[in-house]
Amino acid sequence: MFLFLVQGKWTGSAAWNTLLDPLNGEPFIKVAEVDETGVQPFVESLSKCPKHGLHNPFKSPERYLLYGDISAKAAHMLSLPKVSDFFTRLIQRVSPKSYQQALGEVYVTRKFLENFSGDQVRFLARCFAVPGNHIGQQSHGYRWPYGPVAIITPFNFPLEIPVLQLMGALYMGNKPILKVDSKVSIVMEQMMRLLHYCGLPVEDVDFINSDGKTMNKLLMEANPRMTLFTGSSRVAEKLAVDLKGCIKLEDAGFDWKILGPDVEEVDYVAWVCDQDAYACSGQKCSAQSILFMHENWSASSLIPKMKYLAERRKLADLTIGPVLTVTTEAMLEHKKKLLQISGSKLLFGGEPLENHSIPPIYGALKPTAIYIPLEEILKDDNYELVTKEIFGPFQIITDYKKDQLPMVLDALERMHAHLTAAVVSNDPIFLQGVIGNTVNGTTYAGLRARTTGAPQNHWFGPAGDPRGAGIGTPEAIKLVWSCHREIIYDFGPLPRDWEIPPST
Amino acid sequence: MFLFLVQGKWTGSAAWNTLLDPLNGEPFIKVAEVDETGVQPFVESLSKCPKHGLHNPFKSPERYLLYGDISAKAAHMLSLPKVSDFFTRLIQRVSPKSYQQALGEVYVTRKFLENFSGDQVRFLARCFAVPGNHIGQQSHGYRWPYGPVAIITPFNFPLEIPVLQLMGALYMGNKPILKVDSKVSIVMEQMMRLLHYCGLPVEDVDFINSDGKTMNKLLMEANPRMTLFTGSSRVAEKLAVDLKGCIKLEDAGFDWKILGPDVEEVDYVAWVCDQDAYACSGQKCSAQSILFMHENWSASSLIPKMKYLAERRKLADLTIGPVLTVTTEAMLEHKKKLLQISGSKLLFGGEPLENHSIPPIYGALKPTAIYIPLEEILKDDNYELVTKEIFGPFQIITDYKKDQLPMVLDALERMHAHLTAAVVSNDPIFLQGVIGNTVNGTTYAGLRARTTGAPQNHWFGPAGDPRGAGIGTPEAIKLVWSCHREIIYDFGPLPRDWEIPPST
Amino acid sequence: MFLFLVQGKWTGSAAWNTLLDPLNGEPFIKVAEVDETGVQPFVESLSKCPKHGLHNPFKSPERYLLYGDISAKAAHMLSLPKVSDFFTRLIQRVSPKSYQQALGEVYVTRKFLENFSGDQVRFLARCFAVPGNHIGQQSHGYRWPYGPVAIITPFNFPLEIPVLQLMGALYMGNKPILKVDSKVSIVMEQMMRLLHYCGLPVEDVDFINSDGKTMNKLLMEANPRMTLFTGSSRVAEKLAVDLKGCIKLEDAGFDWKILGPDVEEVDYVAWVCDQDAYACSGQKCSAQSILFMHENWSASSLIPKMKYLAERRKLADLTIGPVLTVTTEAMLEHKKKLLQISGSKLLFGGEPLENHSIPPIYGALKPTAIYIPLEEILKDDNYELVTKEIFGPFQIITDYKKDQLPMVLDALERMHAHLTAAVVSNDPIFLQGVIGNTVNGTTYAGLRARTTGAPQNHWFGPAGDPRGAGIGTPEAIKLVWSCHREIIYDFGPLPRDWEIPPST
Amino acid sequence: MFLFLVQGKWTGSAAWNTLLDPLNGEPFIKVAEVDETGVQPFVESLSKCPKHGLHNPFKSPERYLLYGDISAKAAHMLSLPKVSDFFTRLIQRVSPKSYQQALGEVYVTRKFLENFSGDQVRFLARCFAVPGNHIGQQSHGYRWPYGPVAIITPFNFPLEIPVLQLMGALYMGNKPILKVDSKVSIVMEQMMRLLHYCGLPVEDVDFINSDGKTMNKLLMEANPRMTLFTGSSRVAEKLAVDLKGCIKLEDAGFDWKILGPDVEEVDYVAWVCDQDAYACSGQKCSAQSILFMHENWSASSLIPKMKYLAERRKLADLTIGPVLTVTTEAMLEHKKKLLQISGSKLLFGGEPLENHSIPPIYGALKPTAIYIPLEEILKDDNYELVTKEIFGPFQIITDYKKDQLPMVLDALERMHAHLTAAVVSNDPIFLQGVIGNTVNGTTYAGLRARTTGAPQNHWFGPAGDPRGAGIGTPEAIKLVWSCHREIIYDFGPLPRDWEIPPST
Repeated sequence: MFLFLVQGKWTGSAAWNTLLDPLNGEPFIKVAEVDETGVQPFVESLSKCPKHGLHNPFKSPERYLLYGDISAKAAHMLSLPKVSDFFTRLIQRVSPKSYQQALGEVYVTRKFLENFSGDQVRFLARCFAVPGNHIGQQSHGYRWPYGPVAIITPFNFPLEIPVLQLMGALYMGNKPILKVDSKVSIVMEQMMRLLHYCGLPVEDVDFINSDGKTMNKLLMEANPRMTLFTGSSRVAEKLAVDLKGCIKLEDAGFDWKILGPDVEEVDYVAWVCDQDAYACSGQKCSAQSILFMHENWSASSLIPKMKYLAERRKLADLTIGPVLTVTTEAMLEHKKKLLQISGSKLLFGGEPLENHSIPPIYGALKPTAIYIPLEEILKDDNYELVTKEIFGPFQIITDYKKDQLPMVLDALERMHAHLTAAVVSNDPIFLQGVIGNTVNGTTYAGLRARTTGAPQNHWFGPAGDPRGAGIGTPEAIKLVWSCHREIIYDFGPLPRDWEIPPST
Repeated sequence: MFLFLVQGKWTGSAAWNTLLDPLNGEPFIKVAEVDETGVQPFVESLSKCPKHGLHNPFKSPERYLLYGDISAKAAHMLSLPKVSDFFTRLIQRVSPKSYQQALGEVYVTRKFLENFSGDQVRFLARCFAVPGNHIGQQSHGYRWPYGPVAIITPFNFPLEIPVLQLMGALYMGNKPILKVDSKVSIVMEQMMRLLHYCGLPVEDVDFINSDGKTMNKLLMEANPRMTLFTGSSRVAEKLAVDLKGCIKLEDAGFDWKILGPDVEEVDYVAWVCDQDAYACSGQKCSAQSILFMHENWSASSLIPKMKYLAERRKLADLTIGPVLTVTTEAMLEHKKKLLQISGSKLLFGGEPLENHSIPPIYGALKPTAIYIPLEEILKDDNYELVTKEIFGPFQIITDYKKDQLPMVLDALERMHAHLTAAVVSNDPIFLQGVIGNTVNGTTYAGLRARTTGAPQNHWFGPAGDPRGAGIGTPEAIKLVWSCHREIIYDFGPLPRDWEIPPST
Repeated sequence: MFLFLVQGKWTGSAAWNTLLDPLNGEPFIKVAEVDETGVQPFVESLSKCPKHGLHNPFKSPERYLLYGDISAKAAHMLSLPKVSDFFTRLIQRVSPKSYQQALGEVYVTRKFLENFSGDQVRFLARCFAVPGNHIGQQSHGYRWPYGPVAIITPFNFPLEIPVLQLMGALYMGNKPILKVDSKVSIVMEQMMRLLHYCGLPVEDVDFINSDGKTMNKLLMEANPRMTLFTGSSRVAEKLAVDLKGCIKLEDAGFDWKILGPDVEEVDYVAWVCDQDAYACSGQKCSAQSILFMHENWSASSLIPKMKYLAERRKLADLTIGPVLTVTTEAMLEHKKKLLQISGSKLLFGGEPLENHSIPPIYGALKPTAIYIPLEEILKDDNYELVTKEIFGPFQIITDYKKDQLPMVLDALERMHAHLTAAVVSNDPIFLQGVIGNTVNGTTYAGLRARTTGAPQNHWFGPAGDPRGAGIGTPEAIKLVWSCHREIIYDFGPLPRDWEIPPST
Repeated sequence: MFLFLVQGKWTGSAAWNTLLDPLNGEPFIKVAEVDETGVQPFVESLSKCPKHGLHNPFKSPERYLLYGDISAKAAHMLSLPKVSDFFTRLIQRVSPKSYQQALGEVYVTRKFLENFSGDQVRFLARCFAVPGNHIGQQSHGYRWPYGPVAIITPFNFPLEIPVLQLMGALYMGNKPILKVDSKVSIVMEQMMRLLHYCGLPVEDVDFINSDGKTMNKLLMEANPRMTLFTGSSRVAEKLAVDLKGCIKLEDAGFDWKILGPDVEEVDYVAWVCDQDAYACSGQKCSAQSILFMHENWSASSLIPKMKYLAERRKLADLTIGPVLTVTTEAMLEHKKKLLQISGSKLLFGGEPLENHSIPPIYGALKPTAIYIPLEEILKDDNYELVTKEIFGPFQIITDYKKDQLPMVLDALERMHAHLTAAVVSNDPIFLQGVIGNTVNGTTYAGLRARTTGAPQNHWFGPAGDPRGAGIGTPEAIKLVWSCHREIIYDFGPLPRDWEIPPST
């Protein structure tokens, strides 16, 4: 049973929404959801923040230090085993995934916070300056906040995504309103309290639970200067229009992996494929959706090994579990359509999970792989079907012959979203051929390449789209949460004997 | 009489549009305008360019060098007096402004091209890399092109704006279609030929003349990955929606200047105000639209001096001239409304130009300044009227008392666009007070501060808007014409004795 | 009673040296000092480290993460009140200064460690890359370690200087031997144990106590690739020759402050002058050695206020205390010589401390200021005497008339070392006049300017000398502890139909 | 017959030194050499330049623009065929090398100048700034000049090395005295005149011809703040001591190449080896001195192909020619000693050139390669002999078995200088193994790797030495010709109600 936060105060609303336990369908959390009549306090709270933000290099710079302190303290809290364990289990409870995967979120969040300890928040506001045309003139390029901003984040990473984006927004001087998918927002509600304990001023962030329609109304009325949205492409495109492009997006992707001609370490590659496709039941934005194998790999033991690995996953330890946005039925239907394509075949999986109590509003499918011939994928009639993203434990596998790489590249070029990718090869010439002809924003290359893995130490986000967001790194924070402002000092003095020149 | 360029060929169309000479209303240029039936070749041409561009760090890197060569050669051409004079006069002919102002465009364009000579284009593609978690892993952050892109530029800087944006787009590996306001596109048509002479491959750029409706259709069909629009806020907002936010904007601004408490060098400040408000007949995006004087300045000879300077401007040398987007009538009407505000007064100007043959579709007004009391400006009834941008030789002047700075800041906060600004003072504490509480993207500060001045050596663009574009500097080019792509090498080797771990 | 550390083992030597308590002259610490016969294990230990270091971007990158962890843990330890208090009191005990000043060292050390938590150590190893001339070629600029290095640090900051330089050296992949002035090395001995507790591998650092002669022998034999020396100019110059320039230096400075024409906040400026000149009994490298007052300040109450502030300092709380490298006698002798200069006068101080038990090997002087006319300072006969650095509570004060700024600048230009400086004025034109004509490495400018203050958030070090070191910031660490290495990948492929060209 | 330049005037001296034509031994150039009695005007000229330089961000910033202009103009001049041909032939005449090689120098010089056209000089002076602790405080990191500096460059690149270092020094605001090896200084004398024509102020550079002893005296008296020396290790080490380390060095190197296990493109690799070892008769600092072949390459046709290529070189087109610092006799003697090593053999060359008129003070040797077994190289008795640098067409070749890579790495670690290197392999794991365990400053990696190639677009210089210089790139210029200066603005205001706190 939890609450929202506005103008520095935690409040419950009249409307309590009850969530079902994804593992057994029983009611287990009541969320205070704001409805359309309740948005006014949030609108007011946002509008109190000016466009120049809560701080900037010329206003309250001591707040940069405050956020360095908050980060150091919160990182230390998350390093304590009992705190880390608490958040890991809380994440598992609402967004079912294995202990290790949930712990990964806590770990990345902690490392991110360590990265912005001490002076590192103010270092984000580092500017540059260049000599001007005459004595007394120098131009400075600053990073400036947007002021009032909004953050909307999805169910699959209930801690990592909101904390990284929220703190990034705050670091740069913005005042965010944060909305996390209500199904999992209890995690962030608890984290907000930890952040307050570590020194976060209560007025700096508003925290809301609501349905999408209410949030849309709020955004239209409050008119935040920037909105970060992480979630489905459908909603992303609608928001882009509603907000007239004042948005940064990280939407889902149909992420691909290519295995190059050099076959080595088959066990390792099979294991990475299994993790990429099925960890978190395939509900990572970066999950492997399609695998292109060079014919040399087809001849190896890769597929049998992947099958073996997929089949050792079990509900008991949540290495496979509920799918929160696609029903079992929908996934089976998709399987059926795919298997009607000429030459296609089911490699493994393709059946509902057994002996479970996952409620029917959620999905429950065994890790599934379907083979489709490359030529069929490229056909106009099939392409859209095959490259439809299923946000669950579901992947397409195909292969290509030595001279068919151009066809593979063609398939990649035609995709709509370009989030993550992997090119598994240690042949630098093969690698540059694929990298130079594609655009995915986070692309792993080399024998150990994976599609998943969104740590805090490197950029994660789509490429090829001017609205694309990044998360977590200094570059991502600066791009998403600040803009360039140029201040040109021109103090003089005037040249001796200056006189008014003719007009021009 | 001139043409458009598509798929490497110059072509004339069936539809010839005749332009009127802005100085005497006589027909003087025929432009080949593409209509809605003619967009197909442009759509095809754009769609030939893949999303990964014409070049990127892993594809045809020799093209970075090619563009360094083109830039060096074109810069040298523009340094030749006869070439420079030719473009200066051509600019004057279609976008009336003084010789000096038109020459300024040519000069800035040349310096920009010098800046990207030699290896400097490839230096724009500079990436960074960070060690990974284990041996064989390193993450790289690259600047990646968008591929097919569009550029739409206005009438007021017929050479500088299109060249700087076009070359920026090309440098980063994009294939642009360029549309310049037909009234002035002859300048860029000539410049395209010069660039071809200097080595620009003819297939790299498509060049179109059309009306807005046709261009809109083209954009909808060709779906460029990024569109740079420089022009009116009205069109900008529409395009932002039509293109779902895949856009960078530099729209006009109601640019302000504040004179601080320290009165010095009155002659100089008056001269800068005159140039900021009236050079190019006030048709710079950065033109001074409103002046806030500290009461110490009201007591000085500033206003009489500004009046004197405004009145020495004359049509003969185009230090005042035709206004291309606002009629005389509309400006007089605006003046009339303003003078109905309590306490307002006409400081100077406010009458049509005399003895001219400017056609009535254009405007012809003497440099004009109207005083409005600060309290009146802030009233809800007046605010929108007073801060309406008039793209002509027209400014508002007001003053503030020592303790009224917060009111001035409030007026600034309520504006919609935040392009340029100036804070005229050498008092660092006054400066930081204004800078820290505002957001204009290009803000000059100091006794010599101006609002105009968009040289190639520092950033120029609006702030406070995630869609905001910049122009000309390395930072602006990278922001507008490329996105971040992360390549994480992960070559291995595997740890000795690696074994498949449990699933997670 | 404490030890040294070599090849991962703490060891005591035969030779124990007994230190006297600086406050009462009684024996209080026994230090195990290595003599010339004992250097061999240190030489061997250093020589085990290859030139490419313990780690670099291509070797053991996991060690970057290890150091991020060590830093986060050590920072947390120093944030614990009992640990912080322990080190504060330990510093006070051996390098007498006020509690607040000693605490400052602990605080800066902690903040420095926070700055390099998480991934920030690997971010120090960030490289850049640029496209090459043809497909398959890219050039990368890396930061490379030196391998075996040495660090020699002085008595005045027993914790801050060695920790910041030591960790910087380690972060970049070097293996340092650390020698701290034996008088205070107990602080660092304790800190080494804390670092080991936080995960520092014991083999990574050797820690030695010895006299200078022994250390010189060790350096000659071990031949470290780089030596960082912080200390006196005399030793610095000798080491530069002995080590053939393979050195970075931060030697003392005769640090100056200029008060500009704008007199404001006299209380504040007097207080800053008092702290700059007399905190730590004037034994900071950045202590104010000379003050140039504009005549407007001479007319203010500044000097009387400085006198008042100087006289409230007392031995009881160590706001004034023992001088560790200059005897009372030497300081009185210097005073005497100065007072023989025409027009000079004693402003305050100039007498030995009273009622103390500081042993005569140390100095004990009241905070002292001596006025010397500017014209006299500039005379060749006086200049060297006046600008002789006294590492104690001793400053020169002079004044200058409106038109004498060039004489002041001439005095600055003739100085030998250029560490810190301050220009107290809010007049930007005055500031740029002084800044543009001087070279001190750390120069504060503005009404709140000070000469002391070497926090971890900005560069601290001399300028104008290619051997100059910096401390603590990312830039300083990279400059001092790593060098540029360029790796140019050139994978190919060859151009199709490549044939052997003629020789050239 | 040419002159020197001091204090803005070209002057001849009493002492004329006559140079012999390296191709036929006849007198052909008379150089005005300054002797020890003539250094005074140079000392005075240098001492006129203050430590803060001729310009810096706060002094005469318009000079940054001046140097952008000079660079653009000089680059254009060098792009004119007749100018380019003039310098190419002049280089050939004094430093015999093929037309193509000499042209390469002119081309690199031109591209370097293009790189610093327009605003790019002022961009070198770009600083960064970070928010401070309270309102009104910001810290700035600037690049500051050294003021008076010296440049000493060798015979082998008479145009490229002096121009790149000279312009770099000037760009950053220094006043250099330039000394080029008298044998070739006529090239730079002509280039100085071209630079003056392009706008270089005549007082900005002093240009001297003298012997080393005179130059040493001059340096001792003038005491330049920084000296850049490119030349032999012997002189470098002496200068480092004489100048107390105020020096940056680029001395010669015993440059190595390793061929990895993957044998491909044998023709190409043989051709690169031939060019690396014998172009410019082996007189590049980056020339290949030793080749380590994986046994797979020994089994290929590599060596016969290298022999074929070496033998097609001929004096007629200067693809082989005079050696200016080693006599024929000395090289033959070295060969003889090497061939006494057990298992060694002459692979090709090893004999004097035939039918030539090269005077005996110079060397004339056929391109030579000697095989020495790896085990022998590593022996203490042989190591120094084998790795002695012969600045001529002379290389050592050896091979290693699959498991002998550690021995190769050991051989590399023991070398003294670490300039260039090449690792010829497309196996990323092999590459990282070699790169991570070595330190050469400019290391090419990949199948197309070479040791020579010092273009203007990437860093060139030694690593592993804090005195190491770089040349030509923005990073090199900033490192060698400027130092860090931190300016911390601290304008205030004071906190409201501030009161004097207790002393600390």
